[in-house]
Amino acid sequence: MDFAGSHILSIAQFERGHVERIFSVADAMGPYAQRKRVTKVLDGAILGNMFFEPSTRTRVSFGSAFNLLGGEVRETTGFESTAIAKGESLYDTARVLSGYSDVIVMRHPAEGSVAEFAAASRVPVLNGGDGSNEHPSQALLDLYTIKNEVAAHGGTLDTLRIAMLGDLRYGRTVHSLCKLLCLFSRVEVQLVSPLELRMPAEIVEQMRTAGLKVVESDQLEESIARVDIVYSTRIQEERFSSREEADLYRGRFRLNQSVYTAHCQPNTVIMHPLPRDSRDNARELDDDLNDNPNLAIFRQTDNGVLVRMALFGLVLDVADQVEKHSREVNWYTAGRF
Amino acid sequence: MDFAGSHILSIAQFERGHVERIFSVADAMGPYAQRKRVTKVLDGAILGNMFFEPSTRTRVSFGSAFNLLGGEVRETTGFESTAIAKGESLYDTARVLSGYSDVIVMRHPAEGSVAEFAAASRVPVLNGGDGSNEHPSQALLDLYTIKNEVAAHGGTLDTLRIAMLGDLRYGRTVHSLCKLLCLFSRVEVQLVSPLELRMPAEIVEQMRTAGLKVVESDQLEESIARVDIVYSTRIQEERFSSREEADLYRGRFRLNQSVYTAHCQPNTVIMHPLPRDSRDNARELDDDLNDNPNLAIFRQTDNGVLVRMALFGLVLDVADQVEKHSREVNWYTAGRF
Amino acid sequence: MDFAGSHILSIAQFERGHVERIFSVADAMGPYAQRKRVTKVLDGAILGNMFFEPSTRTRVSFGSAFNLLGGEVRETTGFESTAIAKGESLYDTARVLSGYSDVIVMRHPAEGSVAEFAAASRVPVLNGGDGSNEHPSQALLDLYTIKNEVAAHGGTLDTLRIAMLGDLRYGRTVHSLCKLLCLFSRVEVQLVSPLELRMPAEIVEQMRTAGLKVVESDQLEESIARVDIVYSTRIQEERFSSREEADLYRGRFRLNQSVYTAHCQPNTVIMHPLPRDSRDNARELDDDLNDNPNLAIFRQTDNGVLVRMALFGLVLDVADQVEKHSREVNWYTAGRF
Repeated sequence: MDFAGSHILSIAQFERGHVERIFSVADAMGPYAQRKRVTKVLDGAILGNMFFEPSTRTRVSFGSAFNLLGGEVRETTGFESTAIAKGESLYDTARVLSGYSDVIVMRHPAEGSVAEFAAASRVPVLNGGDGSNEHPSQALLDLYTIKNEVAAHGGTLDTLRIAMLGDLRYGRTVHSLCKLLCLFSRVEVQLVSPLELRMPAEIVEQMRTAGLKVVESDQLEESIARVDIVYSTRIQEERFSSREEADLYRGRFRLNQSVYTAHCQPNTVIMHPLPRDSRDNARELDDDLNDNPNLAIFRQTDNGVLVRMALFGLVLDVADQVEKHSREVNWYTAGRF
Repeated sequence: MDFAGSHILSIAQFERGHVERIFSVADAMGPYAQRKRVTKVLDGAILGNMFFEPSTRTRVSFGSAFNLLGGEVRETTGFESTAIAKGESLYDTARVLSGYSDVIVMRHPAEGSVAEFAAASRVPVLNGGDGSNEHPSQALLDLYTIKNEVAAHGGTLDTLRIAMLGDLRYGRTVHSLCKLLCLFSRVEVQLVSPLELRMPAEIVEQMRTAGLKVVESDQLEESIARVDIVYSTRIQEERFSSREEADLYRGRFRLNQSVYTAHCQPNTVIMHPLPRDSRDNARELDDDLNDNPNLAIFRQTDNGVLVRMALFGLVLDVADQVEKHSREVNWYTAGRF
Repeated sequence: MDFAGSHILSIAQFERGHVERIFSVADAMGPYAQRKRVTKVLDGAILGNMFFEPSTRTRVSFGSAFNLLGGEVRETTGFESTAIAKGESLYDTARVLSGYSDVIVMRHPAEGSVAEFAAASRVPVLNGGDGSNEHPSQALLDLYTIKNEVAAHGGTLDTLRIAMLGDLRYGRTVHSLCKLLCLFSRVEVQLVSPLELRMPAEIVEQMRTAGLKVVESDQLEESIARVDIVYSTRIQEERFSSREEADLYRGRFRLNQSVYTAHCQPNTVIMHPLPRDSRDNARELDDDLNDNPNLAIFRQTDNGVLVRMALFGLVLDVADQVEKHSREVNWYTAGRF
């Protein structure tokens, strides 16, 4: 795959070299995302940010990433009012909308819809999430965060040990992350979930075929004892027959500071795709972790901007021109990160 | 009418010279819309894109057109949450909102509302559609497309032969197009519709008074046999007493590749205001036309951007400065059109 | 308080010097808001315009103010689709969203929510209204308008005489304005309302403690006879036991041209926070005042842009660099103000 002009639809597109290239460009985006410098490399370009399903953080993250490269954003949110709702085909929608911008990010509730849209688009399309199918920029930002966090303690993706907790059956983000980890054959994965919410067998099989060591368990404490990363996810009430049963499971997979201190090695990094639930009995990551420097959940969302800047830079083929179009910041930025 | 500072509310404002001026400016916008060059002639200007009735394509088309000239877009969509819903007059809304931008595009469900708003506005207002009344930029983009399509085969608007199909009674776009065609006295028009959905008599009369040759019919095949343009529109179920009756009519006015090959001259161009229905039994233009090079429906929407750029350029009086504020594109644009 | 990097949450933050500094910067913003010049001092900066409760005018006013300084705006409106609705804490929302922009404006229906959000934000937060609690930019634009209007007739805030009419019990804007007026100890205030809708006693007390002269009344005519400013507000039907009772009160506090001529001194300025009701029997300011040059209600909303530009300029510490990054306007602006 040559990035220039390509659609980014699925992590299955990527070989290891592609991922390393994205991460290298993301690194170079740091000074701009952190407002040490301003770049205008995409000044005059337009992003069509089409969210046919609501999302605040992914939508704003993509939009800000494009603005940070100097481009403009035209945005559509919601579904009821669109031509699609009046019976228009995705083919027509794509032919029309791709005449209005230089690149499109699309989220849509139906699996496969973004790929169908991309096939008819005249400009590159980035998948912002199509139902339970794919959300490639989330998987990339997770892996990018893992790489950076373990590097801070001298580790690499090649020697990674990671535990994933919670609803591994329905969680789109952990599925995508597992597939992406298959590019790194020496990774060790602990999958920790209620029996009812185990990781789909074909994904476990795919990891084992790729050479990864995978252990499944429903015991939290032992699973998080010797890992670099604990990746926690939501356990949703609606997956169980009663709220009481859900509460029981949530209680068993909850991480807080005392569990962390008792069972994790020092420097074990905590991640989560967010949002985390803050309601009583529904928390999977307690607030008392907020001051733990190894809580990386907000570094994840910050990294999302870098990774999305990198994707835009690569598909629009300006990744190497960013610095050339840059200058200093002239407004207040102290205390930003 | 001098364009600078004017409202664009109705096609009734235009004499032939105005239309020719708009089209000439639209032609000059080509390199910028097609990303061969970038212009920043409106850098620092703000468009208030006020859509009090939902519309994805018209809203995004106007917004992108303004961005392509270098300006910024502040957008409002929906109605429930506005001050108008709390009893504010259009006068007050216009006085307030016109303090926030340099030009306003407004869509509103009520006929005449945009003109009422414009009367109180302190900046130029472009009508983005006011109920069943007017949608002047659509009529202009249709006529601009017709001009370009017939020119490709050596024709001109002065010798145009056009057939309009479908719901001619309620279709706002064909009404406006007919009125605009009155500026070109030698045009020949075939109006093809179910009897229940004939073009309003006063519009037929207006065309005949202007010198146009108008034939009404409910027979598709003979009507499309000797025309340059076939302009198809939707037949909507709710116009008939039953779905069965609607399906019957839709069947009779449906265009597909075999009807086209059997009845149309080579190079007959197919147009449609979009969206076209893609649902079974509701299609007015079949998907098998998608590879027909004379299907101009996406060239229409692309032209919409050019025409809207031209309108902005003219009312803000920068049409002649566009090139002066331009430069080369530095991102990937291959395969765009 | 040093403005650079500060949150703007409440008018209680301001001493007299702060207000004077904001007004002085707002004055300097005039040429840019009126399109005599363009400044790009915030070129490359991003505003997160987060409206978790709908508002057209405040949202667009903040957004346009930021665009007028050269910055980009990423916007979120509505609530249902946000992570907050899925149980996310304001702490998490703030940590995440503050990674996407350089400054955030937030409106939220819950009192105190914006301050809670600001406590976790990594960038400055401006309160765009938190329920019935605070809306500091509205209070500032009101006071800025008062200052300018009285200055046009040789007056100052130190010798101001003002009457406030209508629902003084629930009106957030008059509460905030009264608190801000406490910085000017010689102001004379007439509070005119139905008995049921009197100004809360603690605010009256606060003004008297600050040295202001305060008179409460339910008689319109005598109260507006010797003031510089009449500040009218809405009387809402839902505050009364019946529509008839509401109409009775609304009738008694309605201002129109004949009441104005009969009872006000020449040059008495009429203000209103808008929207004003235009429905029969619900009007508090009649349309026949629209040609009265002392009707300042649209100068208020225009001033809102200046004050918001000033706030952005101060918290991002570019207030003194605006001119340095400026140039001439090249598009049509005649007749704008």
